[in-house]
Amino acid sequence: MDELVNKLVKGKIGFHDVQKFTSPAEAVEVRRRSLEQLTNNKLEHIGKYSIDLGFATNRNIDNPIGVTQVPLGIAGPVKLNGEYAKGSFYVPLATTEGALVASVNRGMRAISESGGCSVRILHEGMTRAPLFKVRNVSEAVKLRDWANSNFYKLKELMEEDKFLKLKEVQPFITGRHLFLRFVCDTSDAMGMNMITIGLQRVVEFIEKENRGARCIALSGNMCTDKKPSAVNFILGRGRSVTADVAIPKKIVDKVLKTTPKKIVEVNYGKNFIGSAMAGVLGGFNAHVANPIAALYIACGQDPAQIMNSAMAITSAEEEGDGVYFSIFMPSIESGALGGGMNLPTQKEALQILGCYGPGEPAGNNARKFSEIACATALAGEISLISALAAGQLARAHDRLGRGKG
Amino acid sequence: MDELVNKLVKGKIGFHDVQKFTSPAEAVEVRRRSLEQLTNNKLEHIGKYSIDLGFATNRNIDNPIGVTQVPLGIAGPVKLNGEYAKGSFYVPLATTEGALVASVNRGMRAISESGGCSVRILHEGMTRAPLFKVRNVSEAVKLRDWANSNFYKLKELMEEDKFLKLKEVQPFITGRHLFLRFVCDTSDAMGMNMITIGLQRVVEFIEKENRGARCIALSGNMCTDKKPSAVNFILGRGRSVTADVAIPKKIVDKVLKTTPKKIVEVNYGKNFIGSAMAGVLGGFNAHVANPIAALYIACGQDPAQIMNSAMAITSAEEEGDGVYFSIFMPSIESGALGGGMNLPTQKEALQILGCYGPGEPAGNNARKFSEIACATALAGEISLISALAAGQLARAHDRLGRGKG
Amino acid sequence: MDELVNKLVKGKIGFHDVQKFTSPAEAVEVRRRSLEQLTNNKLEHIGKYSIDLGFATNRNIDNPIGVTQVPLGIAGPVKLNGEYAKGSFYVPLATTEGALVASVNRGMRAISESGGCSVRILHEGMTRAPLFKVRNVSEAVKLRDWANSNFYKLKELMEEDKFLKLKEVQPFITGRHLFLRFVCDTSDAMGMNMITIGLQRVVEFIEKENRGARCIALSGNMCTDKKPSAVNFILGRGRSVTADVAIPKKIVDKVLKTTPKKIVEVNYGKNFIGSAMAGVLGGFNAHVANPIAALYIACGQDPAQIMNSAMAITSAEEEGDGVYFSIFMPSIESGALGGGMNLPTQKEALQILGCYGPGEPAGNNARKFSEIACATALAGEISLISALAAGQLARAHDRLGRGKG
Amino acid sequence: MDELVNKLVKGKIGFHDVQKFTSPAEAVEVRRRSLEQLTNNKLEHIGKYSIDLGFATNRNIDNPIGVTQVPLGIAGPVKLNGEYAKGSFYVPLATTEGALVASVNRGMRAISESGGCSVRILHEGMTRAPLFKVRNVSEAVKLRDWANSNFYKLKELMEEDKFLKLKEVQPFITGRHLFLRFVCDTSDAMGMNMITIGLQRVVEFIEKENRGARCIALSGNMCTDKKPSAVNFILGRGRSVTADVAIPKKIVDKVLKTTPKKIVEVNYGKNFIGSAMAGVLGGFNAHVANPIAALYIACGQDPAQIMNSAMAITSAEEEGDGVYFSIFMPSIESGALGGGMNLPTQKEALQILGCYGPGEPAGNNARKFSEIACATALAGEISLISALAAGQLARAHDRLGRGKG
Repeated sequence: MDELVNKLVKGKIGFHDVQKFTSPAEAVEVRRRSLEQLTNNKLEHIGKYSIDLGFATNRNIDNPIGVTQVPLGIAGPVKLNGEYAKGSFYVPLATTEGALVASVNRGMRAISESGGCSVRILHEGMTRAPLFKVRNVSEAVKLRDWANSNFYKLKELMEEDKFLKLKEVQPFITGRHLFLRFVCDTSDAMGMNMITIGLQRVVEFIEKENRGARCIALSGNMCTDKKPSAVNFILGRGRSVTADVAIPKKIVDKVLKTTPKKIVEVNYGKNFIGSAMAGVLGGFNAHVANPIAALYIACGQDPAQIMNSAMAITSAEEEGDGVYFSIFMPSIESGALGGGMNLPTQKEALQILGCYGPGEPAGNNARKFSEIACATALAGEISLISALAAGQLARAHDRLGRGKG
Repeated sequence: MDELVNKLVKGKIGFHDVQKFTSPAEAVEVRRRSLEQLTNNKLEHIGKYSIDLGFATNRNIDNPIGVTQVPLGIAGPVKLNGEYAKGSFYVPLATTEGALVASVNRGMRAISESGGCSVRILHEGMTRAPLFKVRNVSEAVKLRDWANSNFYKLKELMEEDKFLKLKEVQPFITGRHLFLRFVCDTSDAMGMNMITIGLQRVVEFIEKENRGARCIALSGNMCTDKKPSAVNFILGRGRSVTADVAIPKKIVDKVLKTTPKKIVEVNYGKNFIGSAMAGVLGGFNAHVANPIAALYIACGQDPAQIMNSAMAITSAEEEGDGVYFSIFMPSIESGALGGGMNLPTQKEALQILGCYGPGEPAGNNARKFSEIACATALAGEISLISALAAGQLARAHDRLGRGKG
Repeated sequence: MDELVNKLVKGKIGFHDVQKFTSPAEAVEVRRRSLEQLTNNKLEHIGKYSIDLGFATNRNIDNPIGVTQVPLGIAGPVKLNGEYAKGSFYVPLATTEGALVASVNRGMRAISESGGCSVRILHEGMTRAPLFKVRNVSEAVKLRDWANSNFYKLKELMEEDKFLKLKEVQPFITGRHLFLRFVCDTSDAMGMNMITIGLQRVVEFIEKENRGARCIALSGNMCTDKKPSAVNFILGRGRSVTADVAIPKKIVDKVLKTTPKKIVEVNYGKNFIGSAMAGVLGGFNAHVANPIAALYIACGQDPAQIMNSAMAITSAEEEGDGVYFSIFMPSIESGALGGGMNLPTQKEALQILGCYGPGEPAGNNARKFSEIACATALAGEISLISALAAGQLARAHDRLGRGKG
Repeated sequence: MDELVNKLVKGKIGFHDVQKFTSPAEAVEVRRRSLEQLTNNKLEHIGKYSIDLGFATNRNIDNPIGVTQVPLGIAGPVKLNGEYAKGSFYVPLATTEGALVASVNRGMRAISESGGCSVRILHEGMTRAPLFKVRNVSEAVKLRDWANSNFYKLKELMEEDKFLKLKEVQPFITGRHLFLRFVCDTSDAMGMNMITIGLQRVVEFIEKENRGARCIALSGNMCTDKKPSAVNFILGRGRSVTADVAIPKKIVDKVLKTTPKKIVEVNYGKNFIGSAMAGVLGGFNAHVANPIAALYIACGQDPAQIMNSAMAITSAEEEGDGVYFSIFMPSIESGALGGGMNLPTQKEALQILGCYGPGEPAGNNARKFSEIACATALAGEISLISALAAGQLARAHDRLGRGKG
């Protein structure tokens, strides 16, 4: 091992070469020790982990040197009246920001004491949009029409993986650039990888059957992955979910420490007037990215996907003597198995929610997770908007809404 | 301990109450064991950690039950010609997505072999925009004018923390809603918390001096925190940074395995035509959110802030016989100390980069970090665009660009 | 008449009351003369018109006092290879801005000498989206499902006007707000009025059949009318049209006085980098609003509809030794009859294009018009981008690209 | 004349050549008669006009063939409490859409009976942003710094026209593309032409003094002209104006025929929830483009500039027992002289408003016009939102809100 460390430090081999000379697990130690020397640091905690990094190498990580330990807190229970998530749930949140879990927790209490929130999935389908370049506008239209006519052939090529179903192909043309947005049911997986693999066959077939059609990018940004986009906001990606709860005045008083009228005023001023003035895209909310990032990291979802997953519209409206809250999240991209979800701590977090692995029937665990994600975001909104309404952000010692959104 | 677990399981106390009866450190165990019983799971790995969760309780996490272990890989070295980051850097990336580190690594190799990338900070200033409601349009204008006239008084009130400097107050009015966007130099801290604390005094003073002015939300979404927004894209938040590199043809051949012409064609079709069609906000890039999320998690930055931090425009242009790449990131929100950055593994990651703690002079470590973040994003773009151009995403066994953006 | 003028001036009656006491035609004179006295002006030219303003009263105008004379120029001929517009067309443009017609004319010459531009309609359907408010999320989902199940009943109610066909109902839910976006074929009419009338029956039926469903706005902004919107950009409204032309180098030299390389550089820097930096919505073009506004005013289209109709993506790409230009316009809202199109000068303008009145088969005149609109916009883009590339905007005496976009 | 017509019809000369052989005024007739033969139409009304088209040729129109007659109606009086527009105003609106003038008129009545609306200009400055391309990021930063250091020299070069004042240069960099957004006071002119002329000198100076800096487009879309853009929404272009009015319950009853509560519900559901769902840019309003287009055409403003001028946020809030309405319009691009404003009917329309020609002091007529534009838009919003709230759009015979937005 010392010899390998030595070579690495001297630049004779690179970090990615280490695996050629030793086991994946030992390679982790070699890299970390080399890095300690190279940067003259002690990487004590990075080297402490219980998971099998050797096994994770290349599956989940390249050139591993250890792990980042992210504190994991628990919020809830929150009562959900979803179609897939029914009952009370404890929600694991991985964050380094004090007060976030407490804030979500308070929102969950308001929800639960009001009888729970309703949640509905409005649309589902993971997408990938390869970009084809042809000779001109009329060829682009022909290729689009060909794709429409050959939908069932494309579907057959796509669906080698039995959990992958092609639902729809949405075409978009500008000049000679044609995007085919493939919308798929990916069951309990987030699904990007299975779609990409399926598309390889589809794209080759399209190019073979259509002289002059060239796929210049397997992902042409009309998907859209990891960039907040109108196409995802309008057409959905992953799952579009909405949730609501009516909170009676007495619970607003007791749990949220403010009044329905103030809540409505703050939500209107901040989440609508403020967001309209700021020119947001899908950002008509207070801090949905906070609980979603924490939930995604805890549960092994792809944290880069909060770019679209955290788009949301939060509405607060007076209702009887209380307040009605709703949230709409058009693009929750998540799953229940595969990728980071299979790592030990992440898997345990999903197990806490009761949605690790294949659902019964297939897809139901992923659906359940997306409902819980939506309810968690709603809880966060209720709490922060209420904290603002109560002036708590302006009082130094209140922690519940601090520094959030 | 068993008794506490018992009480928690039976619902006699809540997760947040545990601390009242035992030490913070033991409370972690109590909660986790209770949760194991409540959800009938074994939370083995979540309970394995080397960091002091007791100390982190309330500072970084509420209701902790353990940690999430996120695999940490190393990319680089990458050669930077920044104003603050000069030389070669190894970049720690925490991710669960295989191939990401390898992909960024390849981009870094292309950069370094081309002599390094230039990086420049164009603008800096963390922001918070309280929302005031007054009687009408003319009162709103008066309050704005008052704020302009009293800038130095507001500045004095704001700057109790010696590392906080108020640079500018940007007013925005719609009807009787007035937003005052406070732009601050926050030195090596990301700075949201110090601004929020400073603003409490400022807001109280404004309300006291202006009869009828009411701050209805300390954060009015014109900040904008954690929602992608045009105001951040146009005016910047945190640091606006740009970077570029010219890659000669021979390095394109050898490292990126494609041609400059193809790279330019893909970047144009995907990052401009595709993103324009998709209706993105600041999303004229391939997958900047991927490396930024991984870097942020590794280094204890706030991962919810990738919503703005990962906005980027990536340009690829033919240059001589090679290709010129540039990236613009208007809103890198990050720091070098405070919050999650003080946690052990995160601190070690920052130390790898040589930018943990106060810079010399103050602020320079945070600046250095933002330059490295920008270069890391650029490396990711170079690699993925090249992988698409080489058709590697369409060939099943290539890993470098798989499933990214 | 003097007496009426007197009463109006003294404020005893209002402008809208005049019609009660005299003929619509004379009322025009009464109003104008009163206004002359009230504002102490001579309205000489406003009072000169050849059209029957009495007949137009209430149909096209309320409280008329005369007309605005907008200079009308002619551009072309432009050669079109559309599906509906085939051959050469002279295009009437009403504008007060010198150089606009000349600029479009030059673009048309470049197009025609290159063999004409291809144009294709990608999608058609005029839309209106009433907003329903129900009790909660689960009621919203039920109402959506009911609307899906009752599509043919809604269609029947909608289609009293034989030229109106309901194609699709697109539902969007956020919390308890449900938008039903009705997409219709409106034949040769722009169609907003016929849809609004048809929707009245539909909405009453929906409210009657669904206890608790309340239509709170017949137009809920998901239509979207007259506000640039992502939903129109992504899903289209009116007609989505694309056009292209490949211009050989020698025509670039002779007509456009620049080089393909410079054109591509300008289009990339301005229409992509610049528009991305500016944060446009559908504004990846140079000045499409100019020719579209001029064409719309000339032909009696609704000029407020340029808000969406002028959204466009203009691409310029090197092609052989020349340049390939394309344009995509997702939301051309226009017609061939009805509204302002029936007014005398506007009707004559449509007749110049050969697309006034009902097409054969129905709808084809409106389709033809939208193809011509798209080609006209393309011509404007070619000319202005070329003028910029030639540095003509920077040379004082060149008129062709002056002050445009 | 017949001979010229003959030559034109036979294609021996083009429409733009006619002027070489005859007077501008006769050229109009020649073109129109030729076009009649070429398209086999009678262009009777187009040929009827009272204005001097010969004089307008090249100044306002190229290749003129006559005029488009657009019906002109009058709305008001509306009472304004602006800083420049004080008192009651009759507002001329040119439109072909029945009910528009009546609708605006009703809104104006509600405003006036409530004591008038307040209006304030928040910001002013017309902009143009040339695009420079340099070698790389570090050169871009240097050029930016040079421009900052040489502001007064650039100002001097810019201000040859005594009515033009350079207020600020806003720099934006992405990679090697640098945009310098010149913000100017243009007095009573809309100002684009004077800025363009002034910039020619500035740009030549910049290129001369900075080796390697190349202006690739005098307008780089960061201006932004005629494309709705976030930069205009956030930083303003032309004039940013806001207006408001509190309407007591009894006037809501009498004039608007509905209730404050319903108005607020509709405005929230349509202008905020609906617009948020639709993904608008600056389109948080009901139909501002309608009155603004009509006012712009009437008064000789550039109708293509409604793209930004009609961006608006409309708020309706309960206030006492009545309703508070406000509007914010960030980018009203308009003037009081020059361009189409000098044409006879357009000039008369401006005279009705009392804001034709140079103001005293200079600029005040343009400011007055922008305040009136804002109040007119507000009136339109009040009326349409009320019509929707009253269910009038859903009752067939009500005309006041028909088919608008």
